[in-house]
Amino acid sequence: MARLVMKFGGTSVGSVERIFHVANLVKRTVDAGNEVAVVVSAMAGETDRLIDLTRSVSGGQSDVNLDYAEYDSIVSSGEQVSSGLLALALQARGVRARSWLGWQIPVRTSSTHGSARILEVEGADISARLAAGEVAIVPGFQGVTDESRVATLGRGGSDTSAVALAVGIAADRCDIYTDVDGVYTTDPRIVDKSRRLEKIAFEEMLEMASLGAKVLQTRSVELAMVHRMPLRVLSSFDQSPDSNTGTLVCDEDEIMESQEVSGVTYSRDEARINLLQVPDRPGVAAQIFGSLAKANINVDMIVQNVSRSATQTNMTFTVRETDIDRALNVLNQEQRAIGFSEITFDKKVAKLSVIGVGMRSHAGTAHTMFEALSAKGINIQVISTSEIKISVLVDEEYTELALRALHTAYGLDTIQE
Amino acid sequence: MARLVMKFGGTSVGSVERIFHVANLVKRTVDAGNEVAVVVSAMAGETDRLIDLTRSVSGGQSDVNLDYAEYDSIVSSGEQVSSGLLALALQARGVRARSWLGWQIPVRTSSTHGSARILEVEGADISARLAAGEVAIVPGFQGVTDESRVATLGRGGSDTSAVALAVGIAADRCDIYTDVDGVYTTDPRIVDKSRRLEKIAFEEMLEMASLGAKVLQTRSVELAMVHRMPLRVLSSFDQSPDSNTGTLVCDEDEIMESQEVSGVTYSRDEARINLLQVPDRPGVAAQIFGSLAKANINVDMIVQNVSRSATQTNMTFTVRETDIDRALNVLNQEQRAIGFSEITFDKKVAKLSVIGVGMRSHAGTAHTMFEALSAKGINIQVISTSEIKISVLVDEEYTELALRALHTAYGLDTIQE
Repeated sequence: MARLVMKFGGTSVGSVERIFHVANLVKRTVDAGNEVAVVVSAMAGETDRLIDLTRSVSGGQSDVNLDYAEYDSIVSSGEQVSSGLLALALQARGVRARSWLGWQIPVRTSSTHGSARILEVEGADISARLAAGEVAIVPGFQGVTDESRVATLGRGGSDTSAVALAVGIAADRCDIYTDVDGVYTTDPRIVDKSRRLEKIAFEEMLEMASLGAKVLQTRSVELAMVHRMPLRVLSSFDQSPDSNTGTLVCDEDEIMESQEVSGVTYSRDEARINLLQVPDRPGVAAQIFGSLAKANINVDMIVQNVSRSATQTNMTFTVRETDIDRALNVLNQEQRAIGFSEITFDKKVAKLSVIGVGMRSHAGTAHTMFEALSAKGINIQVISTSEIKISVLVDEEYTELALRALHTAYGLDTIQE
Repeated sequence: MARLVMKFGGTSVGSVERIFHVANLVKRTVDAGNEVAVVVSAMAGETDRLIDLTRSVSGGQSDVNLDYAEYDSIVSSGEQVSSGLLALALQARGVRARSWLGWQIPVRTSSTHGSARILEVEGADISARLAAGEVAIVPGFQGVTDESRVATLGRGGSDTSAVALAVGIAADRCDIYTDVDGVYTTDPRIVDKSRRLEKIAFEEMLEMASLGAKVLQTRSVELAMVHRMPLRVLSSFDQSPDSNTGTLVCDEDEIMESQEVSGVTYSRDEARINLLQVPDRPGVAAQIFGSLAKANINVDMIVQNVSRSATQTNMTFTVRETDIDRALNVLNQEQRAIGFSEITFDKKVAKLSVIGVGMRSHAGTAHTMFEALSAKGINIQVISTSEIKISVLVDEEYTELALRALHTAYGLDTIQE
């Protein structure tokens, strides 16, 4: 007996058969006495097909010059179709249902077409229909601007749509159905002793999402955290998901006994840059990172080493591996202005992170990490920390070894039977 | 220097290349100094694909039980995509353009989803943009109901959308681009001496459209006639259409010298039914045709013969060939109530019609028809007439022969060079 949002991604509605399966899951949830609003993505492949069409007709125009208002009107049609189809499939099962387009609700967004932000979901009409026993089907990824034009949230925005709708209709929970059965302590493809987390705190999930666990979109977790909207991640391929399956993303308070570390993540999409003999004067860091920011290059870990000279220092930082060539270009152009002597770089590095709200109250979390890596002979190149996360940069070759070592060191391994 | 609506069907925007061609035609019209609004259908095949999807997910439901509000939301996406694509293709050619969805204009329709009627097109916003030099692209076939839901006009509704838009923005003319280069005196596949009409009156076009010339949708001609909106039918495959190509459908006054007959049409989709020995009493016709109307069967030509008996008559009428079995069923069930003795029928019949506003002022039009058919030994089974049309029913075998004879008899043949 709850008001729920159920969100299904593109593969979950990728065919008529998959839509039937989703309709059955929704019907079961309704029959159990819940009020249900559903958010769907476009059928798998459809968004790509539509984007290809817009590229084809735009001819020589670069993506920058594309009229994203037209792009949005075209691309949003994918979700328009899948939500109508799901409504029909539910009706065929005797469930009262209707689809609601972004402009009908409305889902108000900013006017930055192609990557709009949701400003507000007016939940009143849908809430009234839910209370009257009707299921609402809402296309993800789309909304409407103040100028009454269709806007999309950018790729993967449907998770965010689901959370915003849940907030708008004051749902009890937002269930995100995906192709994995929950959030894991680490990547199960590398660590076979990894295990599904029953619960995880918003803050932890946010770090996991931004550090490479691709289960949830970072923006959707942020939104859920701000509005304290519990999320559940579970598999739409599971034949009979229940309240014990999946992972609940919730407020820290609702997790009785926080682990010191809840998860271990890694990212190979890292590159390390070293600037040697940088003049040690005020404003030099602003100069370096300002020029990179202007080129839209995100810098992650930053370390400034004390050098032997009193007037010079060495600067080490990481960028995405895909940005490295552009970063080197920018820095070479600025070499004279900044005044460093030499650039070195390494693309064969990986970032490992341990995450847990419990580390706030545990002493020695960093020590455990360094010791575990040291015991395997793994050298740490750069360290960065936040309140609930410790990240280290290591040689990429050691990724799997390090991941398994950390997973064991923090007691995350499943007990093998 | 005019305000024009240009309408393109599904084959005209059926591929990226075809969309480019349409964009070039529109650009040329804009460059010539005109204000242009464009109405497009969905890319060829797309509407069928979407309808198939709705059928698949609706499972066992008959079309009658289908929720046509959902159907409309799904199926209307085809035009949403093609209009966005055309806007982008125009922009890539340096033409300022934007697409307008039915609810954005709005195109107000009735709430009979799946076959809605247009109530009004609010042309103010688009008119202002046209005057400012922007091209408006409008998806055909769609509008919005008072309940803010998407409605479609039924198959082929895009012609009607184009005329309604032309009326809403007070256009000077509505150009319907199709896959033929105009309206012909008769079917060129049968009569090689047939010729393209430069002008045709609304009333004539209306008869031609409802009698089987499939160039324009009947509803669109009706709407154009009521609002005296000139239509031009021309080919989108023509590389350089100009004001001399195509056929202008216009007010009778604008045609200097009306022909006695403008066109000859035929239809093989006819079946003749004879009821023998029908009691000759008041109300019997109402009984017969009332029972057919209740079964949604259209009756076309009707003749009541004087019979030898003073108390009995014979009744002859035609229905569509596809309706014959249902019609016979209905009549057999009502045999006792109506009181006729026997039914005979013939599916091998064809209806031939000559159409022309000029016949109002010409004597002997019918005589010419009967004489031409008689000269070829063709027997006339049933005759029906209206102010601007004479139709006869003949044995289907004579269709082509009769068509050519009539075409010649009314002086419609081209002079062979």
